[in-house]
Amino acid sequence: MYSFMNDYSEGAHPRILELLMKSNLEQNTGYGQDLHSKKAKEYIKKLIKKENVDIHFIPGGTQTNLLSISSFLRPHQAVISVDTGHVNTHETGAIEATGHKVVTAPCKDGKLTPDAIQKVLDYHSDEHMVQPKMVYISNSTELGTIYSKAELKAIRDICLTNDLILYLDGARIASALTSKDNDLSLSDIAELVDAFYIGGTKNGALLGEALIICKESLKEDFRYLIKQRGALMAKGFIAGIQFEALFQDDLYFELGEYANEKAEQIADILKKQGYSFYTQPCTNQLFPILPNSILDKLSEEFLYSIEKKVDDEYSVIRFVTSWATTVEGVDKLREFFTHN
Amino acid sequence: MYSFMNDYSEGAHPRILELLMKSNLEQNTGYGQDLHSKKAKEYIKKLIKKENVDIHFIPGGTQTNLLSISSFLRPHQAVISVDTGHVNTHETGAIEATGHKVVTAPCKDGKLTPDAIQKVLDYHSDEHMVQPKMVYISNSTELGTIYSKAELKAIRDICLTNDLILYLDGARIASALTSKDNDLSLSDIAELVDAFYIGGTKNGALLGEALIICKESLKEDFRYLIKQRGALMAKGFIAGIQFEALFQDDLYFELGEYANEKAEQIADILKKQGYSFYTQPCTNQLFPILPNSILDKLSEEFLYSIEKKVDDEYSVIRFVTSWATTVEGVDKLREFFTHN
Amino acid sequence: MYSFMNDYSEGAHPRILELLMKSNLEQNTGYGQDLHSKKAKEYIKKLIKKENVDIHFIPGGTQTNLLSISSFLRPHQAVISVDTGHVNTHETGAIEATGHKVVTAPCKDGKLTPDAIQKVLDYHSDEHMVQPKMVYISNSTELGTIYSKAELKAIRDICLTNDLILYLDGARIASALTSKDNDLSLSDIAELVDAFYIGGTKNGALLGEALIICKESLKEDFRYLIKQRGALMAKGFIAGIQFEALFQDDLYFELGEYANEKAEQIADILKKQGYSFYTQPCTNQLFPILPNSILDKLSEEFLYSIEKKVDDEYSVIRFVTSWATTVEGVDKLREFFTHN
Amino acid sequence: MYSFMNDYSEGAHPRILELLMKSNLEQNTGYGQDLHSKKAKEYIKKLIKKENVDIHFIPGGTQTNLLSISSFLRPHQAVISVDTGHVNTHETGAIEATGHKVVTAPCKDGKLTPDAIQKVLDYHSDEHMVQPKMVYISNSTELGTIYSKAELKAIRDICLTNDLILYLDGARIASALTSKDNDLSLSDIAELVDAFYIGGTKNGALLGEALIICKESLKEDFRYLIKQRGALMAKGFIAGIQFEALFQDDLYFELGEYANEKAEQIADILKKQGYSFYTQPCTNQLFPILPNSILDKLSEEFLYSIEKKVDDEYSVIRFVTSWATTVEGVDKLREFFTHN
Repeated sequence: MYSFMNDYSEGAHPRILELLMKSNLEQNTGYGQDLHSKKAKEYIKKLIKKENVDIHFIPGGTQTNLLSISSFLRPHQAVISVDTGHVNTHETGAIEATGHKVVTAPCKDGKLTPDAIQKVLDYHSDEHMVQPKMVYISNSTELGTIYSKAELKAIRDICLTNDLILYLDGARIASALTSKDNDLSLSDIAELVDAFYIGGTKNGALLGEALIICKESLKEDFRYLIKQRGALMAKGFIAGIQFEALFQDDLYFELGEYANEKAEQIADILKKQGYSFYTQPCTNQLFPILPNSILDKLSEEFLYSIEKKVDDEYSVIRFVTSWATTVEGVDKLREFFTHN
Repeated sequence: MYSFMNDYSEGAHPRILELLMKSNLEQNTGYGQDLHSKKAKEYIKKLIKKENVDIHFIPGGTQTNLLSISSFLRPHQAVISVDTGHVNTHETGAIEATGHKVVTAPCKDGKLTPDAIQKVLDYHSDEHMVQPKMVYISNSTELGTIYSKAELKAIRDICLTNDLILYLDGARIASALTSKDNDLSLSDIAELVDAFYIGGTKNGALLGEALIICKESLKEDFRYLIKQRGALMAKGFIAGIQFEALFQDDLYFELGEYANEKAEQIADILKKQGYSFYTQPCTNQLFPILPNSILDKLSEEFLYSIEKKVDDEYSVIRFVTSWATTVEGVDKLREFFTHN
Repeated sequence: MYSFMNDYSEGAHPRILELLMKSNLEQNTGYGQDLHSKKAKEYIKKLIKKENVDIHFIPGGTQTNLLSISSFLRPHQAVISVDTGHVNTHETGAIEATGHKVVTAPCKDGKLTPDAIQKVLDYHSDEHMVQPKMVYISNSTELGTIYSKAELKAIRDICLTNDLILYLDGARIASALTSKDNDLSLSDIAELVDAFYIGGTKNGALLGEALIICKESLKEDFRYLIKQRGALMAKGFIAGIQFEALFQDDLYFELGEYANEKAEQIADILKKQGYSFYTQPCTNQLFPILPNSILDKLSEEFLYSIEKKVDDEYSVIRFVTSWATTVEGVDKLREFFTHN
Repeated sequence: MYSFMNDYSEGAHPRILELLMKSNLEQNTGYGQDLHSKKAKEYIKKLIKKENVDIHFIPGGTQTNLLSISSFLRPHQAVISVDTGHVNTHETGAIEATGHKVVTAPCKDGKLTPDAIQKVLDYHSDEHMVQPKMVYISNSTELGTIYSKAELKAIRDICLTNDLILYLDGARIASALTSKDNDLSLSDIAELVDAFYIGGTKNGALLGEALIICKESLKEDFRYLIKQRGALMAKGFIAGIQFEALFQDDLYFELGEYANEKAEQIADILKKQGYSFYTQPCTNQLFPILPNSILDKLSEEFLYSIEKKVDDEYSVIRFVTSWATTVEGVDKLREFFTHN
């Protein structure tokens, strides 16, 4: 059985583990105020070409999202997300549990558009409705698609015009930025959004996301808020060391590139068989439309997820690759599709 | 500089790291539903001699506390804690942030007493006040003290009489259970409380606490609640593997014993110099009362924390030992106190 | 200028004011535990033919909704509402502010259907999503429509099958129950739902809604929850007296009937002019589709609300009648439409 | 049986009822945007000699407190109150239910002192603890005492120095300001605090508190927050009319003065019998220390509350007077104490 279920099935990339091992018996300051976290932050600041940002390492993605949204908004304010957004569908109401409504807009291939944002703003007219004050997007999206620089700029513009906070969920930003279709750099993103996070969990770390707050007014007292939500790790250096390993050289991007390469190979296999895709392949998540008749057999050899039934004959399924996807895994899949 | 600041300055015990390394490239099911987590739970169930408990691995202690308290209580209900309790003083209002008041009672050496609980119950008479419904204790306490079996039973009795949920914070339960003064076993605790956690972070793990829910009515839908609070790790197996390493043999208790032994050695050094203690040493946290005149010099060689000024001449300070405390560290301290 | 803007523009029906005056200098017990509240509850219990319900008088509708939903659900649970539901659109995120997601379903003329509920249930498959646990409906709906006994029974059935709490917002239940199309009685409703409220504010009272909790398990400690949300009126008897006046005889239904009669007269005027309606008139809210060309002139003489533009030529507007709508007001409107 | 239980046993002062009657059939704009509310606000602004304040009429006191505190603070911030403060003891955790800790300080006759505030600030040192950001006081206090101008200024000073928001709960401000010992005016208070409320419920209104926000930065979007907490009355004009009646002339202060006069008469009766007081009488709440032996008999003729047992022989009880306290009620009490 080989798993294409997700990009968090294996532990950490060996070079991360190595650094963890090497520094294991050092005595570090607690709660993220250690030297490894400091170094990791310096690497990231250099990469995004911004010194005046605050960086915090948070254990997980849902936590980073709920923490950011609940900290940046006042009680009556809401966050706008596409209907397929992770905060809307797959966080068990984590945002609402902090008191904020997620206002949804229809997506275009998983992406939010200025037009959809404008419609939300127009609809929310007075104090009997929540006040949309923040825009949540993810790159890559839940449907594996990515934002172009032009698209991100257009969203930035409508946010500026309407005094909306722009937040980008980068759980899979490594795959997005190393996509062949990508024209955005990390520093572009840091320039265009008010806050975003660089995902570690889904790109080779044991755990950890690097939240980067660019907008000055959002920085104040953020460590209080991390602690209050239970997200201030006693051994914060564990995250620091991992991001140090990911960003002291190009490892972070190498891993993203590798995952994309493996995904492309799988996409090619499927295209060769004539299968089409729910969204066009460009990152490490693929959404082929496969005949239902093949799925039982596929399940005997592979783990993957069924996203939705198209009709009685076809379903959209999801394959995910990662830094850990093996050549053998892909070969096995090629063989399967060649014979089925 | 040697640090006695806390028990989470170093990474993980080598035997834990070893198992992480060994299983690093396995493909695991996400969100804690992997085989390592399953094994770890079996080891723990065997140890506490209870099959019908639910066990969840949570990244950190504050998170485990806020998750348990907010999940077990209805909105108008409150948790009783000693004034020195971690949930009352050092979690940045994490409990209140979930909507619940922490009602405090004066402590006796860091411990809660049935008498103090009764006073709280007597005071809360009607619907204009919160309804105390849960008792929070920690073992060992914030002052390094431990509960005897008789003391825990007495608290259990008043909880039963008044239909209160009894919850034990076991961040430092390893040190408590291996204290020379201890007469409680893990299975005693599992028998006496409704829910508790076994701390990993402060006893050799990179991170992770094992929450054990004993009372049937508290178990329902708990994974939803973990997810909602951002505490459901994608790579849950990282915690599972660590608890597997800690409980597949006696490692967990060996580490607690080692920390206590080191603490005892330090206590002996201090006693020899004639220093007294704020609470009697019995676990890995020591609270000696030292002359203020010595503190600057002490700070040149050691990290520790000043708890509070006693008067112009004396302060209560805190030394913490752990599985990672070195012989050299203790020797250095001995030398310091011999000459100062 | 005459207002058809809403049903809460005037004070209280004279018979209510009269009873308030009469009892003004009596000394009453505070917080709703007075004799008037007791009497009012007895009248209501008799009317709904149920003794074993709990009744609480709450100042306003949004408060009653947020209080009920937040009290009946556990933190990870959500309430299902039609997209046009008051809790979803016009309560400024009051439900989310208590921590709960409102999961929406498309409406059919403002009404929820078993089919729409089933789709929501099917979609929410595991602990990564909220758990839909409650159904919110209003009668009459935000679009002025009402549920038939068969429709309400069908919703009740799917709730029973799936262990969902059924809650009915009765802000305009007076108008619903006295509609010519209605086949439900208050006692039918009390039989079919788990909790509901009888609206006072929109049917002749200064303020106040009577929340009726039918399901045993939802009753516990409810006064604590009312107090916690700031909804326990010190002078609770003010609400008690008003509901006493409304239910000691048929006043409550007379007022609903009167409002419906006035609405019917207006509907007839509009029909005579050949105008159609967004939803079929049957209660005190009318949604005619009027030419945009007429609206400026209409606004010179009447207050009303524009619900939405249909196209460049037509808009849906809303006229609301009440116990206080005057013959003259309707005559004025008749005259307007005869000449325009 | 005559009740001295509280100051909210009767309905409204006749002059308030009169204005409600008179304007009953007017058509008003909803949600507090009517002309009566406007007029009432103008009267209040004139009285406090401040034009640039925002005034909102809120149904009740607990609601006003929870609304203000939750709106003014960020999630990690706490409010400081004396241990006897209403928000700490008698609001069923309403403040915590909005996510904020109430940090307590010991009181001096029910009052907060700069020294006690400083101790709280000193104790809260870093991000592991909540951040005290707001000071809550009430005038008169829960123990019937009042703040002098010097005392209030001293609190204001420490708030300015430490960037703390100062909020005053004026549920019984009428009695405070008309106390013989008082040297504060409403305009002094408006000058010294950042926000406060003028209580209607306990001084002659059916319901309603006038929240006055003085500090510019606290005003933004406040109507959204009122709506979200369920405190935006559809018939807001009901509160507006009442405050119009209270402030169009001196009625508000006349009622406070009357209540104080009646309290003073009772205090004199008790002093004549040699009884002492828990706090010195100066407003409409009296806390005499009476022999337990007399209480059963007292309860046969009067309603009052027992605050606490002093010892086996004595208890502190509470008598409350109001605008509605009758001469006969006081005479009856005089007679009782003359013969018992």
